[in-house]
Amino acid sequence: MAATILDVADLCGYSKATVSRAFASPDQVAEKTRQRVYEAARALNYTPDAIARAMVRGRTDNIGFVIYEKQYPVVLNPFYSPIFESVLQTCARKGYSLFISSDRDLRLPNGQTCVKKQMDGIILAGQSDAQMVMDLRRQNMPVVVLNNAIDVDDLTCVTTDQYGGALLAMRHLTERGHRKIAIIAGAFSPHVCTSRYNGYCDALREIGQTIDLRFVQTIEPTAEQATQCASMMLSLPDRPTAIFCTNDTIAVGTLKAALRAGLRIPQDVAIIGFDDSEISHLVEPELTTVRVDKAAMGCIAAEQLIAQIEGETPPKQVIQTPVELVIRQTT
Amino acid sequence: MAATILDVADLCGYSKATVSRAFASPDQVAEKTRQRVYEAARALNYTPDAIARAMVRGRTDNIGFVIYEKQYPVVLNPFYSPIFESVLQTCARKGYSLFISSDRDLRLPNGQTCVKKQMDGIILAGQSDAQMVMDLRRQNMPVVVLNNAIDVDDLTCVTTDQYGGALLAMRHLTERGHRKIAIIAGAFSPHVCTSRYNGYCDALREIGQTIDLRFVQTIEPTAEQATQCASMMLSLPDRPTAIFCTNDTIAVGTLKAALRAGLRIPQDVAIIGFDDSEISHLVEPELTTVRVDKAAMGCIAAEQLIAQIEGETPPKQVIQTPVELVIRQTT
Repeated sequence: MAATILDVADLCGYSKATVSRAFASPDQVAEKTRQRVYEAARALNYTPDAIARAMVRGRTDNIGFVIYEKQYPVVLNPFYSPIFESVLQTCARKGYSLFISSDRDLRLPNGQTCVKKQMDGIILAGQSDAQMVMDLRRQNMPVVVLNNAIDVDDLTCVTTDQYGGALLAMRHLTERGHRKIAIIAGAFSPHVCTSRYNGYCDALREIGQTIDLRFVQTIEPTAEQATQCASMMLSLPDRPTAIFCTNDTIAVGTLKAALRAGLRIPQDVAIIGFDDSEISHLVEPELTTVRVDKAAMGCIAAEQLIAQIEGETPPKQVIQTPVELVIRQTT
Repeated sequence: MAATILDVADLCGYSKATVSRAFASPDQVAEKTRQRVYEAARALNYTPDAIARAMVRGRTDNIGFVIYEKQYPVVLNPFYSPIFESVLQTCARKGYSLFISSDRDLRLPNGQTCVKKQMDGIILAGQSDAQMVMDLRRQNMPVVVLNNAIDVDDLTCVTTDQYGGALLAMRHLTERGHRKIAIIAGAFSPHVCTSRYNGYCDALREIGQTIDLRFVQTIEPTAEQATQCASMMLSLPDRPTAIFCTNDTIAVGTLKAALRAGLRIPQDVAIIGFDDSEISHLVEPELTTVRVDKAAMGCIAAEQLIAQIEGETPPKQVIQTPVELVIRQTT
């Protein structure tokens, strides 16, 4: 039979409470005491029972990272993966473990939102809605929303300056003299899509340019779709001289189309991306893009959530991480 | 005060056991009964307590994906991320959630290996050792090892045909007439490094070619290091006519060096990668590489582990997923 905490206490001569503390909060127990507890534990092959400990404490030290099912795969998504990585690192530093799941895992068979797993708080990434936030709140589950902005009291949303980033990209192109600028937009969540498209429109308005609808295309954000879409645009007799791609995967696909058409970049066509994903400096020529501080987004979301778990009440706030233009070789 | 399961049972007129089953195993409860239970639950705003339920069942339906700390970041690692994604999908399909952590999370302050978290089994990815596997076993924790081969009884290891893949790549180059073939090898775990290097050596031996040590370089597997290393090799007066890169990130860095040196690919220098990561078909020209079935690796590891959790005893086995040559534009 497995050794219990009482067996360890008997063997080392300390109380059950001390043995428990030696494992749960080692820094609160004197070095010498700890060593004797550990020796006894090792001799008896005792280890603390994680489930029982969570039950007693009413805390699990777990955080859920929940992503909207349609945005899977999260891990292979070049935008979400560095955010997730940063959440992971922040949690590790603060002593929390990370669960990863989709919104489907939060639904009961009756459609009700329910936390079926052992977690102390949830980061809702991407598309989510006020109803889900309210349902989680009713279960006393702290929530932070990531890469979206939802209008609910006392809710913290962490996003980036979507509109400002698009404006930066577009002004960079108009300053270089471009007038016929196309947009290839990924079909992202309305929050992201609308803000980036508004930046495109407003920058054209600034230079008195009307919007040419042949130059506005929305696609599924894959490199293949982008190559196809850009090939068509670039074969128009009055083709655009620059293309604003609303993420770097689209920009990479567009770059392929331009290279295959034998166009010189940026002389014949300039290309600008968004996000500053890993891929942007792996391709040749390297992409000009708008840097989104994905590490900061993940870190802020995790820290805000942990503060709530540990008792703080957040104000209603939308935290926007700043963006930055990164000029490389495609503009 | 929060509603309990007894309150729900009172309101809907069914027993506590039926209410419990309606949430835990909905398919074992008649549709009409379930609906009445859910209505009562909704009216009372009752949801099952995850921690308490795990305590009663002695099962958590959680799986831990543990990666060797030095191989972080896991999520941004182009080799591990699709494996992780596949583990995630397989777990979701089988009703398990996934924890992600590093080997550090499994160590007690006294250095002992200990599962501090609520999980039913563990996938140990990358570098790990027999001691850790034995320690986990003593805690009755099922383990599967991924991308490594460890010699322990009844242990399932899931890896790929590292040696065969290297041989495939090299024979492809020698068949195209190459004799001066360099290797730029990433400093991976010994299991991966040694097998891929042996494939390189044996293929050269097959054509009676001796190994030129100027053409053998080991680097940290980043694109930057690869570009630097390849630039040096390609500036030698008797430069290699082909370079075998032991992963695609290295191959992408090597491709950059060749393009910047104004060399034609593959006429002046051929480049071959390993893994068939996402990046291999995003760059232009697209990379010839060795496809590793990362989805299969993740799926097999998860399924093997779940079988163990659900009571099967595995044989001692090393499962090698097959590899395949993917010829694109760089050879």
